[in-house]
Amino acid sequence: MSNKSKIKVGVVGATGYTGVELLRILVKHPHVTIQAVTSRAEAGLSIATLFPSLRGLIDLKFEDPKAANLKNCDLVFFATPNGIAMQEVPALLKAGVKVIDLAADFRLKDANVWEKWYNMPHSCSDLLKEAVYGLPEMNREKIKKASLVANPGCYPTAIQLGFIPLIESGVIDLDDLIADAKSGVSGAGRKAEVHALMAEASDNFKAYGVEGHRHLPEITQGLSTVANQAVHLTFVPHLTPMIRGIHATLYATLTKKTDIQALFESRYKNESFVDVMPKGSHPETRSVRGSNQCRISIHQPQGSHKVVILSVIDNLVKGAAGQAVQNMNLMFDFPEISGLDLVPLMP
Amino acid sequence: MSNKSKIKVGVVGATGYTGVELLRILVKHPHVTIQAVTSRAEAGLSIATLFPSLRGLIDLKFEDPKAANLKNCDLVFFATPNGIAMQEVPALLKAGVKVIDLAADFRLKDANVWEKWYNMPHSCSDLLKEAVYGLPEMNREKIKKASLVANPGCYPTAIQLGFIPLIESGVIDLDDLIADAKSGVSGAGRKAEVHALMAEASDNFKAYGVEGHRHLPEITQGLSTVANQAVHLTFVPHLTPMIRGIHATLYATLTKKTDIQALFESRYKNESFVDVMPKGSHPETRSVRGSNQCRISIHQPQGSHKVVILSVIDNLVKGAAGQAVQNMNLMFDFPEISGLDLVPLMP
Amino acid sequence: MSNKSKIKVGVVGATGYTGVELLRILVKHPHVTIQAVTSRAEAGLSIATLFPSLRGLIDLKFEDPKAANLKNCDLVFFATPNGIAMQEVPALLKAGVKVIDLAADFRLKDANVWEKWYNMPHSCSDLLKEAVYGLPEMNREKIKKASLVANPGCYPTAIQLGFIPLIESGVIDLDDLIADAKSGVSGAGRKAEVHALMAEASDNFKAYGVEGHRHLPEITQGLSTVANQAVHLTFVPHLTPMIRGIHATLYATLTKKTDIQALFESRYKNESFVDVMPKGSHPETRSVRGSNQCRISIHQPQGSHKVVILSVIDNLVKGAAGQAVQNMNLMFDFPEISGLDLVPLMP
Amino acid sequence: MSNKSKIKVGVVGATGYTGVELLRILVKHPHVTIQAVTSRAEAGLSIATLFPSLRGLIDLKFEDPKAANLKNCDLVFFATPNGIAMQEVPALLKAGVKVIDLAADFRLKDANVWEKWYNMPHSCSDLLKEAVYGLPEMNREKIKKASLVANPGCYPTAIQLGFIPLIESGVIDLDDLIADAKSGVSGAGRKAEVHALMAEASDNFKAYGVEGHRHLPEITQGLSTVANQAVHLTFVPHLTPMIRGIHATLYATLTKKTDIQALFESRYKNESFVDVMPKGSHPETRSVRGSNQCRISIHQPQGSHKVVILSVIDNLVKGAAGQAVQNMNLMFDFPEISGLDLVPLMP
Repeated sequence: MSNKSKIKVGVVGATGYTGVELLRILVKHPHVTIQAVTSRAEAGLSIATLFPSLRGLIDLKFEDPKAANLKNCDLVFFATPNGIAMQEVPALLKAGVKVIDLAADFRLKDANVWEKWYNMPHSCSDLLKEAVYGLPEMNREKIKKASLVANPGCYPTAIQLGFIPLIESGVIDLDDLIADAKSGVSGAGRKAEVHALMAEASDNFKAYGVEGHRHLPEITQGLSTVANQAVHLTFVPHLTPMIRGIHATLYATLTKKTDIQALFESRYKNESFVDVMPKGSHPETRSVRGSNQCRISIHQPQGSHKVVILSVIDNLVKGAAGQAVQNMNLMFDFPEISGLDLVPLMP
Repeated sequence: MSNKSKIKVGVVGATGYTGVELLRILVKHPHVTIQAVTSRAEAGLSIATLFPSLRGLIDLKFEDPKAANLKNCDLVFFATPNGIAMQEVPALLKAGVKVIDLAADFRLKDANVWEKWYNMPHSCSDLLKEAVYGLPEMNREKIKKASLVANPGCYPTAIQLGFIPLIESGVIDLDDLIADAKSGVSGAGRKAEVHALMAEASDNFKAYGVEGHRHLPEITQGLSTVANQAVHLTFVPHLTPMIRGIHATLYATLTKKTDIQALFESRYKNESFVDVMPKGSHPETRSVRGSNQCRISIHQPQGSHKVVILSVIDNLVKGAAGQAVQNMNLMFDFPEISGLDLVPLMP
Repeated sequence: MSNKSKIKVGVVGATGYTGVELLRILVKHPHVTIQAVTSRAEAGLSIATLFPSLRGLIDLKFEDPKAANLKNCDLVFFATPNGIAMQEVPALLKAGVKVIDLAADFRLKDANVWEKWYNMPHSCSDLLKEAVYGLPEMNREKIKKASLVANPGCYPTAIQLGFIPLIESGVIDLDDLIADAKSGVSGAGRKAEVHALMAEASDNFKAYGVEGHRHLPEITQGLSTVANQAVHLTFVPHLTPMIRGIHATLYATLTKKTDIQALFESRYKNESFVDVMPKGSHPETRSVRGSNQCRISIHQPQGSHKVVILSVIDNLVKGAAGQAVQNMNLMFDFPEISGLDLVPLMP
Repeated sequence: MSNKSKIKVGVVGATGYTGVELLRILVKHPHVTIQAVTSRAEAGLSIATLFPSLRGLIDLKFEDPKAANLKNCDLVFFATPNGIAMQEVPALLKAGVKVIDLAADFRLKDANVWEKWYNMPHSCSDLLKEAVYGLPEMNREKIKKASLVANPGCYPTAIQLGFIPLIESGVIDLDDLIADAKSGVSGAGRKAEVHALMAEASDNFKAYGVEGHRHLPEITQGLSTVANQAVHLTFVPHLTPMIRGIHATLYATLTKKTDIQALFESRYKNESFVDVMPKGSHPETRSVRGSNQCRISIHQPQGSHKVVILSVIDNLVKGAAGQAVQNMNLMFDFPEISGLDLVPLMP
């Protein structure tokens, strides 16, 4: 394929797990040339030195974000901590560069809510309206036309994909949603913190943030939009001693007798990255390890009015970098699965 | 301490994890002499050869269950698969030997329910009435007088201890209980099965048995007894990539405004093995690793009507062998904590 | 690509880890059509039911090996336990089908040695001479012309690639080689065995087979051939609590002052799948996870006469299925890297 | 037991893993009252808040080291980073307080060597001569009379215990010792560092420090003292994805025909904490998890002149806190096993 048919992309903040995962996917993407990869902390270092898994696959060095010619890119991904992208995005958009932000800066529509949960002022709240929430199964047509995409959080991806068919079809009590979600440790990022040490996090299981996790307003915003009314969600995240993967166990109360299996199969039958499993299945996180799939199964234990939805993704792929590439494919009219034919690694 | 003040105990089926965990505790118990340890498969083998962790601590060999003089014991523990104890217990009881069954044979009061869930006929259903369900925090006085104790399952221990104060005080909706529970892999036992291989179970997370797990009728029986009416529970167990530990995340709907923290602290203030943690805590399974503690914390996310209880135990200790020793201590009028001053192993 | 340019392959015994790993690679191989996948135990079952990671990627069912039309294939892979391939291979070769055996049946040239180490009679020892040992970096030209390739073991791959440059150049004492090797648990296969349970193998480390492991004669045969004289190797394998990966730490005594770094770089400069890392590197197993790479680094601690070689592979890829595909590519004159452009999964 | 028969101990720097492990052991030690526990970073915090595993077992708060009345103690343990103890020890010794340093400050006899490997000036090199190296199996009588004990490193403990009988009996080539050692991640301490994150260290294996690790001069000093001549050791440490445990695989060349099994059994027959396993054994790290045991097995693969010694310890117990308590017991004439009757946690 000639370089003419390729777009030039930049990755800002590529030393974290979502950044290096983007690189893992982009180095094999048929329509992409990686133009610039930045890192304040590692500027000047060869990427393959920091990440030997990429030896022979990428020859670039990390550049200082100030020095990198990001405006020369067709698309820039931000894989930065929250609060960085919002500083840089306006200038890029003005220069005609499209942006996908993998952090949270543009995920919430209400700047006040954002500032409360993220505990900092929002520097470009006017862009919140323009930003498109990048969950393709919800917003595909808007994403195609977007210049600025807010890539969803990992929990919100797994949880919304599990609730959407139930909410769209109006068969559950919207005041009583529960999401008991379990994440692998890579969800905490590549930050030096004691609680994430292997000696602390392995052979251990715990909940965290039960009083309130930043993904809660993101999920309720999405589900309320689908429902066209407010929903009430109890969301309890847990840390699981594995590297990758999210398993969301969702509980809802049925208000109408429904063939839920058929409902899900119909809703997702044209989706490349949502796999509704046969009745009785229990999706495992490893069945999506390294891939962009979300696998879902539906249960009604003992035929009760409670429906239990199990939804698994790889938090770094469908929950971050893979979904970002899916959004890129939509924004540039590439086949939606380009670069995403990733076979899960099992065992 | 002279041997006169000690009782003689036998352990039937000691090659599984609950069996070897019993031995770990019993070799240091001040009031116990281990008299006989049986195993059909390993009869004749030195225990310390199979379990080198016990080298220097126990000199016995596994005996064939037929050959072992169990009737000479004061107490026999059954750490056997379901369906074995019920064959052997009547003769032991008749011989004046007390019995604690760590399997499920005597946990359910209704033989029909038992036979449905365990898929075999019950050979001594008349003993079901006599058997005392060995959850000391619920049945202490009965246990003291019991000859036959049915040691609770691991999930039921963690879940019932988390729900009991709420049910006793009548402050929740009994039709809408949810227990989302996560277990380490030792809960599956020391059986050669592909799904429990490290290459299958590590770096992976999944639910199982969502349609119905054998611990469900045990839990609902216990909670219904406490409630003095039927309760409805949705119970979803999950397999977690760690060796030991259960983390139960419990959801209930409050029907009365209550100081739940105070409620729990009051209910458990005299219990040696239930630790109500301060508000805002998130108990970790490793904080009880190797010990007989159950740690509980209470949450009301965003002040909603949903109460979230987090309850952790070591499935092999408070969820099996430790609780069995606690029951033994009650049955023989030893201090309840004898042999159970086990400091959790952290990290 | 039209089907005309593709070969038809069969996989015999595809329920083990090397089998499913072959499928993971082959479903994306541009020159291959998977014709038949067999399993005695799972005949009739859809492959994607047993391995949900392959849902949407393969539509076949496991066939009974007797029923499968393997003679219609261009190439058959045996991913069977030792002793199976030797029963089936002669008929396939006679029918003009090429064969790659991932088990040990054809790895040793001397049938007596084989029978001693594998503890069974060899049923077609006449083929041992014809079989080509499938380590491309050693035998590339022979493999290209081979009808029957004996795919190397996982330890032998990592260890031989680490010793070959030293032996070829005659700079070490051949009487004093040490290979201290560490393998992930998938190396033990997908067999239901107690010692491989997660509760047994995780959070644990041990040596095994110190008195003699079946890979020892395979390694010494290979190294002696390279040396053109007998070599003496002490080989100690260890089980490591991770799923994939082999890390071989090799010790040799230098007999001539040599620039070993340059020696290795020169020896492997044209190899696609051997990466000689910069001086001072410590290759990690995860840096090759899921890929066909072998990464090697060279050390001379404190400038002593001892050279320490560190060599890592993914035991299921370069140590099994990936190397088998590399051999297939050579046998059918496909580009050697076809289907093997696998980016390591990190983290 | 009355407080009169107890000594008062302090623990300086108790927020690391060796510190909290000391507390785990000391809270149950029959002859000890924990008087003061210090931490600069956590001064004022309740110990049980930071380490919930100790809830109900210790009521103290971390004190600022400046404020703590350590001179009132009979013994002070330093569980601090290297370079701290040497600042504080002289004043304590002058005040009549005995000291056990779990860091490296007093392990090497030669201040120049120390300063080279630890890369800082030594502030009280005159104490290096007085300090006793606290490996009881080597220096028991000296330890009994010591005021200042340098507690050995974890690798040095496992490695020296494995080599000592061979060296003492003069049966091996002292110019060709190899120690290939594998450590769990707790050996890296409770420090926030990216390389020790679970997402980095789990499901991964690597060597590190091959060019030179600080434990090398400590081991060679010890072994040379035993040998009464210089020894040459190649030492390669590796990081293993488990929490606790060291497995040392030792290689030596026999120069005399010897019954090595008998040699080891005889050397250690009176040692409470060294277990020479039967011939053919492969000690597992989990067989000593949480205990003060060192388990050793001896191999001569294929009857060659190479002897392979396998030696396992729990790095936090026999490799740190347990050995420190063993030294304390010797210094205060308590039974050597007081407080150390710790049964390994398995599984």
